[in-house]
Amino acid sequence: MAAFNSNFVSFFITLSVILHGAESIKYEPNWESIDSRPLPVWYDQGKIGIFLHWGVFSVPSYSSEWFWYHWQGPQPFPSVVNFMKNNYKPDFTYADFAKDFSVQEGIFKPDYWADIFNASGARYIVQVTKHHEGFTSWPSKYSFNWNAMDVGPKRDLVGEVSKAIRKYPNLRYGIYHSLFEWFNPLYLQDRNNSFKTQDFVFDKTLPELYELVNTYKPDVVWSDGCNGPDEYWNSTHFLAWLYNESPVKDTVVTNDRWGNGALCHHGGFLTCHDHYNPGTLQKRKFENAMKLDGRSWGYRRNTALIDVISIESLLQNIAETISCNGNILINVGPTKDGVIAPIYEERLRQMGSWLGINGEAVYKSRPWAFQNDTVTSGIWYTQRKDLKAVYAFLFNWPSGDLTLGAPQVTSETTVTLLGYSVPFKFTSQGQKGIVVHVPEISYNKMPCMWMWVLKITNTAN
Amino acid sequence: MAAFNSNFVSFFITLSVILHGAESIKYEPNWESIDSRPLPVWYDQGKIGIFLHWGVFSVPSYSSEWFWYHWQGPQPFPSVVNFMKNNYKPDFTYADFAKDFSVQEGIFKPDYWADIFNASGARYIVQVTKHHEGFTSWPSKYSFNWNAMDVGPKRDLVGEVSKAIRKYPNLRYGIYHSLFEWFNPLYLQDRNNSFKTQDFVFDKTLPELYELVNTYKPDVVWSDGCNGPDEYWNSTHFLAWLYNESPVKDTVVTNDRWGNGALCHHGGFLTCHDHYNPGTLQKRKFENAMKLDGRSWGYRRNTALIDVISIESLLQNIAETISCNGNILINVGPTKDGVIAPIYEERLRQMGSWLGINGEAVYKSRPWAFQNDTVTSGIWYTQRKDLKAVYAFLFNWPSGDLTLGAPQVTSETTVTLLGYSVPFKFTSQGQKGIVVHVPEISYNKMPCMWMWVLKITNTAN
Amino acid sequence: MAAFNSNFVSFFITLSVILHGAESIKYEPNWESIDSRPLPVWYDQGKIGIFLHWGVFSVPSYSSEWFWYHWQGPQPFPSVVNFMKNNYKPDFTYADFAKDFSVQEGIFKPDYWADIFNASGARYIVQVTKHHEGFTSWPSKYSFNWNAMDVGPKRDLVGEVSKAIRKYPNLRYGIYHSLFEWFNPLYLQDRNNSFKTQDFVFDKTLPELYELVNTYKPDVVWSDGCNGPDEYWNSTHFLAWLYNESPVKDTVVTNDRWGNGALCHHGGFLTCHDHYNPGTLQKRKFENAMKLDGRSWGYRRNTALIDVISIESLLQNIAETISCNGNILINVGPTKDGVIAPIYEERLRQMGSWLGINGEAVYKSRPWAFQNDTVTSGIWYTQRKDLKAVYAFLFNWPSGDLTLGAPQVTSETTVTLLGYSVPFKFTSQGQKGIVVHVPEISYNKMPCMWMWVLKITNTAN
Amino acid sequence: MAAFNSNFVSFFITLSVILHGAESIKYEPNWESIDSRPLPVWYDQGKIGIFLHWGVFSVPSYSSEWFWYHWQGPQPFPSVVNFMKNNYKPDFTYADFAKDFSVQEGIFKPDYWADIFNASGARYIVQVTKHHEGFTSWPSKYSFNWNAMDVGPKRDLVGEVSKAIRKYPNLRYGIYHSLFEWFNPLYLQDRNNSFKTQDFVFDKTLPELYELVNTYKPDVVWSDGCNGPDEYWNSTHFLAWLYNESPVKDTVVTNDRWGNGALCHHGGFLTCHDHYNPGTLQKRKFENAMKLDGRSWGYRRNTALIDVISIESLLQNIAETISCNGNILINVGPTKDGVIAPIYEERLRQMGSWLGINGEAVYKSRPWAFQNDTVTSGIWYTQRKDLKAVYAFLFNWPSGDLTLGAPQVTSETTVTLLGYSVPFKFTSQGQKGIVVHVPEISYNKMPCMWMWVLKITNTAN
Repeated sequence: MAAFNSNFVSFFITLSVILHGAESIKYEPNWESIDSRPLPVWYDQGKIGIFLHWGVFSVPSYSSEWFWYHWQGPQPFPSVVNFMKNNYKPDFTYADFAKDFSVQEGIFKPDYWADIFNASGARYIVQVTKHHEGFTSWPSKYSFNWNAMDVGPKRDLVGEVSKAIRKYPNLRYGIYHSLFEWFNPLYLQDRNNSFKTQDFVFDKTLPELYELVNTYKPDVVWSDGCNGPDEYWNSTHFLAWLYNESPVKDTVVTNDRWGNGALCHHGGFLTCHDHYNPGTLQKRKFENAMKLDGRSWGYRRNTALIDVISIESLLQNIAETISCNGNILINVGPTKDGVIAPIYEERLRQMGSWLGINGEAVYKSRPWAFQNDTVTSGIWYTQRKDLKAVYAFLFNWPSGDLTLGAPQVTSETTVTLLGYSVPFKFTSQGQKGIVVHVPEISYNKMPCMWMWVLKITNTAN
Repeated sequence: MAAFNSNFVSFFITLSVILHGAESIKYEPNWESIDSRPLPVWYDQGKIGIFLHWGVFSVPSYSSEWFWYHWQGPQPFPSVVNFMKNNYKPDFTYADFAKDFSVQEGIFKPDYWADIFNASGARYIVQVTKHHEGFTSWPSKYSFNWNAMDVGPKRDLVGEVSKAIRKYPNLRYGIYHSLFEWFNPLYLQDRNNSFKTQDFVFDKTLPELYELVNTYKPDVVWSDGCNGPDEYWNSTHFLAWLYNESPVKDTVVTNDRWGNGALCHHGGFLTCHDHYNPGTLQKRKFENAMKLDGRSWGYRRNTALIDVISIESLLQNIAETISCNGNILINVGPTKDGVIAPIYEERLRQMGSWLGINGEAVYKSRPWAFQNDTVTSGIWYTQRKDLKAVYAFLFNWPSGDLTLGAPQVTSETTVTLLGYSVPFKFTSQGQKGIVVHVPEISYNKMPCMWMWVLKITNTAN
Repeated sequence: MAAFNSNFVSFFITLSVILHGAESIKYEPNWESIDSRPLPVWYDQGKIGIFLHWGVFSVPSYSSEWFWYHWQGPQPFPSVVNFMKNNYKPDFTYADFAKDFSVQEGIFKPDYWADIFNASGARYIVQVTKHHEGFTSWPSKYSFNWNAMDVGPKRDLVGEVSKAIRKYPNLRYGIYHSLFEWFNPLYLQDRNNSFKTQDFVFDKTLPELYELVNTYKPDVVWSDGCNGPDEYWNSTHFLAWLYNESPVKDTVVTNDRWGNGALCHHGGFLTCHDHYNPGTLQKRKFENAMKLDGRSWGYRRNTALIDVISIESLLQNIAETISCNGNILINVGPTKDGVIAPIYEERLRQMGSWLGINGEAVYKSRPWAFQNDTVTSGIWYTQRKDLKAVYAFLFNWPSGDLTLGAPQVTSETTVTLLGYSVPFKFTSQGQKGIVVHVPEISYNKMPCMWMWVLKITNTAN
Repeated sequence: MAAFNSNFVSFFITLSVILHGAESIKYEPNWESIDSRPLPVWYDQGKIGIFLHWGVFSVPSYSSEWFWYHWQGPQPFPSVVNFMKNNYKPDFTYADFAKDFSVQEGIFKPDYWADIFNASGARYIVQVTKHHEGFTSWPSKYSFNWNAMDVGPKRDLVGEVSKAIRKYPNLRYGIYHSLFEWFNPLYLQDRNNSFKTQDFVFDKTLPELYELVNTYKPDVVWSDGCNGPDEYWNSTHFLAWLYNESPVKDTVVTNDRWGNGALCHHGGFLTCHDHYNPGTLQKRKFENAMKLDGRSWGYRRNTALIDVISIESLLQNIAETISCNGNILINVGPTKDGVIAPIYEERLRQMGSWLGINGEAVYKSRPWAFQNDTVTSGIWYTQRKDLKAVYAFLFNWPSGDLTLGAPQVTSETTVTLLGYSVPFKFTSQGQKGIVVHVPEISYNKMPCMWMWVLKITNTAN
């Protein structure tokens, strides 16, 4: 039911846009109006994005991208404090790491990044352009000598990455931007003033956001670090501009991290919290931001294999997320030198090879009436109305008969394994579902590994 | 005559302050009002200040403190460009120098600096707190990660130096601050907008100035880098606050570099241009900013002895400057490690030893009716009305009879050599001056070297 | 036949050792005597070793461990020359890299390395202690300020790694050592003297080797860099000492890279050339040194996934090598920080998981009468006489009937898949071999992936 | 008397050389023979040398050139230990300093050094080519990657400096070389073996010395660091080669620091201990090695003016030393960048200006019968027999009559002040000396400052 409503609403919104034209709508700087804007359809259809955490934190590449805060914030981590004490000179500061954010000629190859991303089957990229450390990966006018052109890489990392990505028609480019900065004295001053002053917002945060959007024309604006009321951040005004006047007003998608009150309630898609994978159908589009290195968004030099998500687990995350109306944003942290480590390249290419067989069940799919099966665990569903098909994602290869409690078949129903030519036999159980008779398939005849998709057509539900 | 007027005006201003109290005067944010404020008397009486150029430019310590601009500005110096090409990696930036602005424990000793300054006989210090490079030597809220606490020294250089200097009752502390910054993109944007926008002024320049004055309470605010109209810089408003409300409103002295139109016309004392040593009496108090290293304000690693001013020349500069109603501001550039090189310490201590004998003719002196002698060259004058004395500064030791065209003697006139007990004989020439009969004095009886002062009392003029 | 002889000889040598005791044999410093020493049996039984290339070359981690030579040797690689020109200052030298060979506390974990190696199923480790660059990874008395204790890591890397490895009873520790050094002026002088002088050998190479063996007691001495006659290197004298008197005389294994004339002819096992995988039975024990990163022995920061050997290919290499009387030495290059990158950890643990099922066919196996099958390609053999078994390594999963041309069955013959409980049926073809009837096994019943081993017992040949 | 003998011996040696030719003498490798070689005359005639301490110690430039030893030797200095703890990372080693021994293009100017040395009036230079730290300032074959070509300067500092100096006909070039090295493990091993083994001597010390002499052909070989018996160092053999066969056999001068037993007894001139200024006539030629920075031979970044010798004190040292048959070797420590700091340049040029007036009394002079005056203190003597003159060096400018107890005048005696045209009157006191009537000379008529020389001709003694 929920799914039906969702699609129904979506239909009328799309219709409205077609009839009236996107141009005619003017959004007001309040949440009611902002929230009324439909998400551009490319986003829901794409389903899979890649998140890039790359910044000065990639230099220590130890503990996590919160390194600075865990070193010098109010509650230091002993491991990080000791790491600094053991390995660096006494007055070393975080800013001193920047010089080793090297990005050397011959090592950093944005075109190769884009090749990996394209091969992975993802449809959009969200690059961290400024994390809570405040370092801007583009030559911002508002971050003199604390940006990637003046120190460290000596390059416009946002410009280079976005340009490389846009060479692939299947990929869209988006930016992550942190509203607050842990240690920026202007922010701290505003906070000490109980957010009654807005020096930081008007001198730093907003100018940066306008600069980013106008310069790089991102299709995603992924805000973060909303430590402060959304009134403090002036968020609705920025979003109204973004939706009404910006160069990306028709295509841009944004999230919900626009202030303490907005998170999980207002904006575009909801992110609520990291690794947001609710497991039940969500009325509103959400995004599950998760990561290949289970312990850090930023690259860690000492990542062990056990910290890296298995390809099976990654694919299961995708199935669970899209079954419930989510997109998934899969994080990878490049090295300080500008390399995507082979283990992450492997996961991404493995995902791409899987999607090459099974993408039909992912892209352009919508949640079905059921999210996961009522009888057998480890089975999640999507549907494609355009193809009159329901898709069952099987986490385990079934041995012999497989009982599915959710689908009710009709006389026209067929059951096939995506990538395998011969249809499977099945027995209808009426309203109790079906039993699929899975044949013995030799190892060398299997269409894919790790997860499998059954396509069930012309169901009654 | 000029001198008379000058003193006369000064007298009434002083009188006015005494009668009405400094508190009662409110200065308006216009030049007429700003210019009407009398200089606090400590400044004119002190005569000699020391200028400290110390910043990131002290790291390359090559060419001059304009290193960055001569490297990457619109008209690069080949010598600087080649220096970088020969000695640094291709993508080295100016900001990369900051990490080597080391100021190590055990090397940098601000108390020893203050000892040198005090021994030099100077009465005030002006420290560069931010040069055109934009690096703030104090932990400014408005220069995140481009200040001396976050990168390089990891210390509050303004706080440490000012504290050390204030331990000496004879010394006052002042700050130099550059309004503009060569490469700050906000400044460049305002300039490209023909100074119609003021983002840089309101986000950076003015907040810094208020922060500096409120935090460090300087007795001198030495503005520089006034590339832009004074309306752009909002200078008169700042100065009105400085004079009316700031914590240093009663003692602070400022200069004239507050905007294109102000230089050499408005503000406190005039500086007009570097090494301003006009050689004729100036109605308005001026300051001759000059330097011990003739080729750079900032330290140069490759300074040769010939580049360093001789003690004779330094003392002559003092005499010429104060004779014409100027103060002198003698520059020294400490090393990146925080050391005043011995050659500069030597000059400063030599000056102090000379002033120990001859200070009577310098401190509290005023210009006399004549600035230099009308007959013999290399002789400059000051006077002390409180001591009924005129002082002749002799650049060369006279051989036998010395003719002075300016002083007209009376019956009560005596002529003595400062530091030497036996008065000199002389013969009056009436309105044509006097002839002083300088005796042969053995080398080991001389009161000082380098320059000598004759004290002529009870002159008729 | 060849295999028979080989085993026969091996048997008598073993017998000789048992009868006379290893202690009673004194080897002479000539190749005939040196070559007469039997290899300690642990080596042949272990089959799989891991090679560690870790040195200053791990810092640039670009191109390969021959970086220095390709940069500044007689025939420079443009890619390397340009890499240096683009990224480093003009007078940067190779020695300058050493300071960044960091090996930080909290990152480098030798115990974790040992855990990976143990889990990989390898039986010995060969660590590069000095490559052609001359940098000693231990605090050598003969390499003042060009060793890992004085510069870079500031640790005894040989000591730390060997200690960690020896905690695992299954693992033995060995050292790699380069006789020559590309740019050592003493070596170059000897070479210019047509190897008539031996200053380098007596001042550097030999003292190092004695120091290494006496200090770290390695079970493998893997010599390399034999650019010069073996008489120049004084190799037979060193080996005689190694075999007669050294603390590892009973257990040590060595190779053949002891001089221009020795390579592929004299010493212990033969290595002949890198990636030595002859494909036919070798009378003399050999070792196939190969690498996980197909393009470099040392770590490369910019390794792409395509450069990393697949697990299938790695396992095939093992099968081919041991079938022909070889051991395999699998190289991994740790990072300059002391980390084994996850992609290599994955390959090694994958290998270990495979060996957990199939190790029976590898360890203690010997070459069989046939190395690979005479009918079906992609099948290699070993045998275990102690288990009366021949093992067929299948590169591809067979579909239905599999014809094996080599094995001739008897009435007691059984055919099983290692790791799978139910025996396979087969049909004898007499001297033409057998046809194995491979059943359809469901994906989730397979004992392993990537390569499979058939165990054929009680064959007639 | 002593002086007479000394000259007498010297005369016969010179005669012997003239008659037989230097070539015919063959020195034996024993001290008696070595000591029998006369010093080449240029050395005694030149009187003044400049000592250059420049090495890796110039990088920390703190405490002294013994920095390493005082940091990590058996009795550490707390100040040095704390300096390292406060300013460097925990595992920083001394070798890490080398990379900052920068010697940049545009800063280091050996030709300008030579100009200073020439202007100073010195006649020879002794450059530290290897101090106890073991770093060779030339590209030694025996110090791979611990020499100035491989790390740090990336230049041949010995080659460049020697070449620049030899452009001046008045200057000779010499080398300082330390036999031992504090931390070289080979040396420590020999020492632990009670100097019974000589690995260090034959692998390092002697090869270096031969390499230096053959390559750079120095006129002075200034040995140091003779911690060990001279038999251990094989010194007499080296010296016999130096005197018999080396390319500098006819011109080279050496010192006495060739082993524990040699110091102050054998070799060429005696140095005995640093600052050797005995104050009484020495039969054997000696050298007073002293320094401009009273606290260090190597450059210190934090040298204060008070640490720098005054020009008066420097000139007095010269007078005292040469009066007693010594040469003086005046040390200056260039900066790590290759600059002679202006304060030292000033002292050297001041010395040169003084010698320009008074050199007649210095160069080619010999000790006189009296070294210092018997009546008035602060007066030292030399003589020039070729000019029939005795020279009295006056530390203080005499006031009126000056009594000299040593010279006995004749009827032909004249007394003049060097640089002053009018002879002084005097009154003979017979055997009690003379009273010189020093006139009042006006400041601007004085020939020089700091020290003055009276020339007394045709004395009776």
